[in-house]
Amino acid sequence: MWTLTGIPIVQAPMAGAQGPKLCIAVCEAGGLGSIPCAMLTADVLRAQIAEIRAATKAPFNVNFFTHTPPVPDPARENAWVERLSTYYAEFGLDPADAAKGPGRAPFDEATCKVIEETHPEVVSFHFGLPEACLLARVKATGAQVWSSATTVTEARWLAARGVDAIIAQGREAGGHRGMFLTDDIDAQPGLMALLPQVVDAVNVPVIAAGGIADARGVAAALMLGAAAAQIGTAYLLSPQASTSAVHRAGLKAGRDDTTRLTNLFTGRPARGHLNRYMREQGPINTAAPAFPLATGAITPLRAHAEKQGSGDFSPLWSGEAAPLAREEDAGAFTQRVWAEAQARVAEVARRAGG
Amino acid sequence: MWTLTGIPIVQAPMAGAQGPKLCIAVCEAGGLGSIPCAMLTADVLRAQIAEIRAATKAPFNVNFFTHTPPVPDPARENAWVERLSTYYAEFGLDPADAAKGPGRAPFDEATCKVIEETHPEVVSFHFGLPEACLLARVKATGAQVWSSATTVTEARWLAARGVDAIIAQGREAGGHRGMFLTDDIDAQPGLMALLPQVVDAVNVPVIAAGGIADARGVAAALMLGAAAAQIGTAYLLSPQASTSAVHRAGLKAGRDDTTRLTNLFTGRPARGHLNRYMREQGPINTAAPAFPLATGAITPLRAHAEKQGSGDFSPLWSGEAAPLAREEDAGAFTQRVWAEAQARVAEVARRAGG
Repeated sequence: MWTLTGIPIVQAPMAGAQGPKLCIAVCEAGGLGSIPCAMLTADVLRAQIAEIRAATKAPFNVNFFTHTPPVPDPARENAWVERLSTYYAEFGLDPADAAKGPGRAPFDEATCKVIEETHPEVVSFHFGLPEACLLARVKATGAQVWSSATTVTEARWLAARGVDAIIAQGREAGGHRGMFLTDDIDAQPGLMALLPQVVDAVNVPVIAAGGIADARGVAAALMLGAAAAQIGTAYLLSPQASTSAVHRAGLKAGRDDTTRLTNLFTGRPARGHLNRYMREQGPINTAAPAFPLATGAITPLRAHAEKQGSGDFSPLWSGEAAPLAREEDAGAFTQRVWAEAQARVAEVARRAGG
Repeated sequence: MWTLTGIPIVQAPMAGAQGPKLCIAVCEAGGLGSIPCAMLTADVLRAQIAEIRAATKAPFNVNFFTHTPPVPDPARENAWVERLSTYYAEFGLDPADAAKGPGRAPFDEATCKVIEETHPEVVSFHFGLPEACLLARVKATGAQVWSSATTVTEARWLAARGVDAIIAQGREAGGHRGMFLTDDIDAQPGLMALLPQVVDAVNVPVIAAGGIADARGVAAALMLGAAAAQIGTAYLLSPQASTSAVHRAGLKAGRDDTTRLTNLFTGRPARGHLNRYMREQGPINTAAPAFPLATGAITPLRAHAEKQGSGDFSPLWSGEAAPLAREEDAGAFTQRVWAEAQARVAEVARRAGG
């Protein structure tokens, strides 16, 4: 089955909530650690990879977004700031201070060069794949190339382009939907249905993602045909994550039915716990600027609210299984969950007979 | 673990697509068969139960809806017929022929009397529970009482009212959402996240429903803590189901990403494959009459289209795992899936070590 690491658990890359520290802890515990790179410059990326290499000999995963940068649409972006101007007035802020620029960058020439220099064992992509010449250069480094599929159609598309593994991202997953051949969030199946259909459709290992936060989820993923389980939200309460205080509070207060898919924070659908901003403006709003330009207008509001200890304007990214998460060392969690998953599989095998 | 039947598989009650024949086949194979009763008169219900008792000694499940009948709103119902009048014109039909009456009835005095006469082993409810005096009478017959929860909050509500088991209905499930404490379909978690949280929240057995269509899903449900797995869609292609020809065709053509939750057919959200009616009027339309009154306006259109071999106006109820379904005898399917689930659990246990 899984041969990349001793433990078939992948720590999901979570931009804005973690860096090398979480990755290293999971790698050293025997799982596959990841770093999210969409918000890093090439220099910071190089430094983070060096930090990981210095701390562990284990393989790790660097994750990039592959969106096409949007054509700026000042009328739309300005209208969005204008829409949020009542919040700016409420907080005594100036809408002119709305952040400019994209905030998140796709995989490109500069980051590709860092990969060629540093040879991470796994390079994973979200929102499809980079253009063919960049993809070929990544593969030439010897890295495994992975990407996320949210439907069987996307999985087939990725397999046809030579990925080494596919992350089947169920609808339950926190953070950005990896969807890239559809923009219809109602067409996003849950993991229980998606995973076996993806396994049947492709000939590469499939990694299960979405709603997996403990040993039961890991065991279920293996039953459905996954080679490994990817866990995100459950790591956000670990001391090695850099999850903000308001985000931690949101995760602890959240329930199974309090997450929503929202495009308000970046322009693309992502799952997080409901807060004031989502309730009042969304959770989906077709007026939001194109990804990632929606980020600018919310940035000063978020910073102001967080200073007051409020997560009302912050993305509280979370999967649907957040209530299963515990405050626990990321390495200990990785080893405990795998040991418990092994025990659970053995126990159910004994009880089920056959 | 599960002691009710030899095989921990429950055949989901599916109104409009099955009767005693499917129930008997599953019971005789060792699973728990069910009949859907929301569209039956007391006399027909009595006759169906007698038919099952004559054919099998095994326990079985009778399933009822528990909605509060809506206050008729002729303006709203007429406006809905008016909205669909272009279809009536297209087919040369008279909108005055739109069916009147509710189409589906909640569990009531008359059906309760049939339960008291016939003593089915399991009585399950959808949309909550009947009023307390009826519920007490059902429990007094010795029947196990089950109901569906779509959130942890609903599961706690049911457990507090003394149900004997809870069906955790993941978002993937076909047919009507059992939701009764919320009407927000965006707050409906997938089974991978919902099931373990429900198991943690209540002290009664939990039955997994949604997206389970083969041995892998059954094995995964057991790992997540379910006492049994409920399977619906995968039985719809069996010869014992009375699934219509257009419905069978819709299931065979459907993909993982072609189902939607729609309120167009009855007034409540239910999952089925996209067709012309859903694309043009929904899939969710807030103008649709209250459940179950939306059924009347579509009935003549559906009948006309089906005569032409078209499922454009029929509810093609389906879960998200329809592509896993096969044409297979329901009894053979039940036994095969359980044998394969046992084998899969044993195989993964061997590979996972521990």
